[in-house]
Amino acid sequence: MYTVADYLLDRLKEIGIDDIFGVPGDYNLKFLDRITASKELNWVGNANELNAAYMADGYARTKGIAAFVTTFGVGELSAVNGLAGSYAENVPVIEIIGSPTTSVQKDKKLVHHTLGDGDFLRFERMHEEVTGAIAHLTTENATAEIDRVLTVAMTQKLPVYINLPIDIAEIVVSKPISPLLGQPEQLTEIETTLLNSIEKALNQSENPVVITGHEILSYGLEQILDSFIQKFNLPIATLPFGKGSFNEEDPHFLGTYSGSTTSEPLKKRIDTADLVLLLGVKLTDSATSGFSYGFTEDQIISVGCTEVNVYGKKQDGIQLNSLLSALSTLHYPGFSGEIIAVKRSPEQINTKKKLTQKQFWNMVETFLVQGDTVIGEQGTSFFGLTNVPLKKEMHFIGQPLWGSIGYTFPATLGSQIANKNSRHLLFIGDGSLQLTVQELGTAIREQLIPIIFVINNNGYTVEREIHGATEAYNDIPMWDYQHLPYVFGGTKQRVATYKVTTEAELEQAMQMAKKDTKRLQWLEVVMDQEDAPELLKKLAKIFAKQNS
Amino acid sequence: MYTVADYLLDRLKEIGIDDIFGVPGDYNLKFLDRITASKELNWVGNANELNAAYMADGYARTKGIAAFVTTFGVGELSAVNGLAGSYAENVPVIEIIGSPTTSVQKDKKLVHHTLGDGDFLRFERMHEEVTGAIAHLTTENATAEIDRVLTVAMTQKLPVYINLPIDIAEIVVSKPISPLLGQPEQLTEIETTLLNSIEKALNQSENPVVITGHEILSYGLEQILDSFIQKFNLPIATLPFGKGSFNEEDPHFLGTYSGSTTSEPLKKRIDTADLVLLLGVKLTDSATSGFSYGFTEDQIISVGCTEVNVYGKKQDGIQLNSLLSALSTLHYPGFSGEIIAVKRSPEQINTKKKLTQKQFWNMVETFLVQGDTVIGEQGTSFFGLTNVPLKKEMHFIGQPLWGSIGYTFPATLGSQIANKNSRHLLFIGDGSLQLTVQELGTAIREQLIPIIFVINNNGYTVEREIHGATEAYNDIPMWDYQHLPYVFGGTKQRVATYKVTTEAELEQAMQMAKKDTKRLQWLEVVMDQEDAPELLKKLAKIFAKQNS
Repeated sequence: MYTVADYLLDRLKEIGIDDIFGVPGDYNLKFLDRITASKELNWVGNANELNAAYMADGYARTKGIAAFVTTFGVGELSAVNGLAGSYAENVPVIEIIGSPTTSVQKDKKLVHHTLGDGDFLRFERMHEEVTGAIAHLTTENATAEIDRVLTVAMTQKLPVYINLPIDIAEIVVSKPISPLLGQPEQLTEIETTLLNSIEKALNQSENPVVITGHEILSYGLEQILDSFIQKFNLPIATLPFGKGSFNEEDPHFLGTYSGSTTSEPLKKRIDTADLVLLLGVKLTDSATSGFSYGFTEDQIISVGCTEVNVYGKKQDGIQLNSLLSALSTLHYPGFSGEIIAVKRSPEQINTKKKLTQKQFWNMVETFLVQGDTVIGEQGTSFFGLTNVPLKKEMHFIGQPLWGSIGYTFPATLGSQIANKNSRHLLFIGDGSLQLTVQELGTAIREQLIPIIFVINNNGYTVEREIHGATEAYNDIPMWDYQHLPYVFGGTKQRVATYKVTTEAELEQAMQMAKKDTKRLQWLEVVMDQEDAPELLKKLAKIFAKQNS
Repeated sequence: MYTVADYLLDRLKEIGIDDIFGVPGDYNLKFLDRITASKELNWVGNANELNAAYMADGYARTKGIAAFVTTFGVGELSAVNGLAGSYAENVPVIEIIGSPTTSVQKDKKLVHHTLGDGDFLRFERMHEEVTGAIAHLTTENATAEIDRVLTVAMTQKLPVYINLPIDIAEIVVSKPISPLLGQPEQLTEIETTLLNSIEKALNQSENPVVITGHEILSYGLEQILDSFIQKFNLPIATLPFGKGSFNEEDPHFLGTYSGSTTSEPLKKRIDTADLVLLLGVKLTDSATSGFSYGFTEDQIISVGCTEVNVYGKKQDGIQLNSLLSALSTLHYPGFSGEIIAVKRSPEQINTKKKLTQKQFWNMVETFLVQGDTVIGEQGTSFFGLTNVPLKKEMHFIGQPLWGSIGYTFPATLGSQIANKNSRHLLFIGDGSLQLTVQELGTAIREQLIPIIFVINNNGYTVEREIHGATEAYNDIPMWDYQHLPYVFGGTKQRVATYKVTTEAELEQAMQMAKKDTKRLQWLEVVMDQEDAPELLKKLAKIFAKQNS
């Protein structure tokens, strides 16, 4: 008997999913049976639903797609903030909600996990605001609706929502007869016109620059971008919200551009370009230090997921991936000017000093190796990492637009499940870790081995920088971070912990962690409450002004 | 300078709020300044927003009203499941969202914590589905809108949502000139007619019974209900979803009625009553063992929050509180039959035995004392407690309709902050605790001293009973519960921990806990994975059938 559940799971496997996250509930248990019975799919139970959504998002940022399962009402509403983050940052995540049977819903019964008013569509309506597509499966529409919403997820890089009444999961259907995704389409007329505009602009430009953003990562276009840059010898910068889209060791890389907070001469180089070609970019406040970029519309050609902006003229109806692939076909001899990359020389380590934010990020720079996956929690960590150059084949994960604190810890675990061959390094503050800490149990059960730097600086440092530096509301309870992994099921065989307060201690812990590749590494890094990366200090002032 | 922030906080104080929960974010920091500056208001920071919503809900169930603060987007969506639970179960909670300035919103800027599309109303629209009222404050409407939504919270016992752009918080306004709530209104015509119907029905009935539900607790009508019962000598039962609405030691109390799972002779007594007067009741699946109540519409007069049902004829437009107050004025000589309460005699404690669910709940019964607040997590604990009789002046908190696991731990802390004079006992399973465990840091920082029974039976027991008894998805990581409180800031001076596996060990731990009134008591109770309260076993079979 081949059922709707089987169909859905086969489609998930087809698009690249090997692991499914989530939390059981009585409206999804029978569907979970099909997952645990599958030899090709692995069930990863989470401590709570928000963490499941975050973990799926991290998995999708590394593997291209992810899915998680919750129960109706309580489960899906706990997870919705995670899905909204996936929407904001173009991460394709599929949420499957096990819901009461079709007849219970039709009869408007007063069952648990509802508001007691017989309205079973409330939560679906809520999800319309934060997903690319919604499906409510019925006997008649199940396979067609599954195909429709999965196609949206894959092509538009947006989260989608599938409401699966538990009886519908067991309806018998036919197996898929054709692949989910057809052949890529020919370029549209709009896309061809746009290509011509870019070709013309490049040929006329004496001083062009490419800036890339996060959508390159959403569509997995790093290789195609690289070919384009190499072929035409173009200078390139990334936004902080797009870090990892280009190899920062490459001679074409100029640096990370963040508006007014960018150091010279990079800032001047970008702001005075006669052509700023934005690829997969959103110019958000966090990425541009409060919209303080120095270029204007008459310099910009911007290619987004589905819309373009040519010198201020906006148009819909393009596909970033089709267009970027076509860029290498342009008739353009390539840029012939000089590309001067930003040179950084990390300071020497002074082993006697108490650790500062500045020196910490210098030391992190020397710790990174090719192929690492680096994750920066939105806060001190993200801004500290912004100017740490990424080496070849590194993957970077942050959440600078949505900026939901606590996100990166589960996301790191999800990403490592997606790619166990990459060393994973998470940088997270104490305040952020507290939101999602229970997923340590999952990390240990799944035998994951990220290197986690917990920055212990006694509270919400980002908030202190913006407002209320010494206010009690920015304090958090002081936990015993050294013993934390051990109450969540960790043992000394599985987890190594370090607490460092000086440069020398950090240096030593890093050396140990580098060699100790079979255990989860947990480095508590103590720094001053008032210390913060320079970029964050500047940006916080800008945010404070934006809020007044 | 008296501002919108001051006005809002003054109104909150006026309706009985002393403590405000929440999590800081840059869009609410300046508003938090006004809270921390207030001598009469206490800021209680939470580890995450869902926990803040749960804690506020627990506070409101004990104090009648509560408020919490989150930031725009990420914060409010993390909390929305908590607010939905408050909606489902008629708990008045006020959520205040600090949002970007009016001009940022008007200009549709691409700021952080948005979806990057300039639509600042998405999250408000989502909240319309799970709140009684929404306000978006502006220069023009701020004080009127605050008054409107707080009135909804107070009179309809529903959660409400206030979007407070951070610039609006600082607009200068006049102080309130009249109290928020006017005098209670006269009875409406509908209410008078209904009273006459009840009077007639009681006078004609030979065998009436009153059944009460959770709405009695929402409106704080326990005293008024008691007067009514005493005056007319009426027999009364409560639903599990309404436990605590009547003193279970009172001679008028028949027992807890849960449909087909109710023991005889109570079941027969209820089902054969010639008048079933339902007060503040919702006949949900969990409360009635899958709608298996034995009475029918022609026996029922039901008075809900705002609607009545007289022998199947439904009508809107009443107020439960007005109506219940008027019940004592009926012309009715009172019930003259015999009231036979259910007698329970807990078994003797056999000190050599491994602890079973059955014996555990017997021992809990003997442990409770007058005035306790007892909280049962929706799962083993709630169903175990259903048939434990509550003593005088006890307060009971559960969440049987919404049933969001993990809810009760933060709710217990919120309730204890609301009433530090009541001993608080929480019963929660290991699986549920894992969802919200980080609030232990708050419990310890706030020096709260609940007695917490953590039932360690290796996973999701409710789910195992319904489906997949030995399936991996019902397993959870095994934590070191004994050391848990100590990593969250606890010390031996503040927290006592026990681990018990036999009746004798539990007996001893209970004796110690009873005397040790200055520390948080943490009792890990180990029981078999397959063991469950009888009521849960029966109900799980009913739920499994409902899902097929």
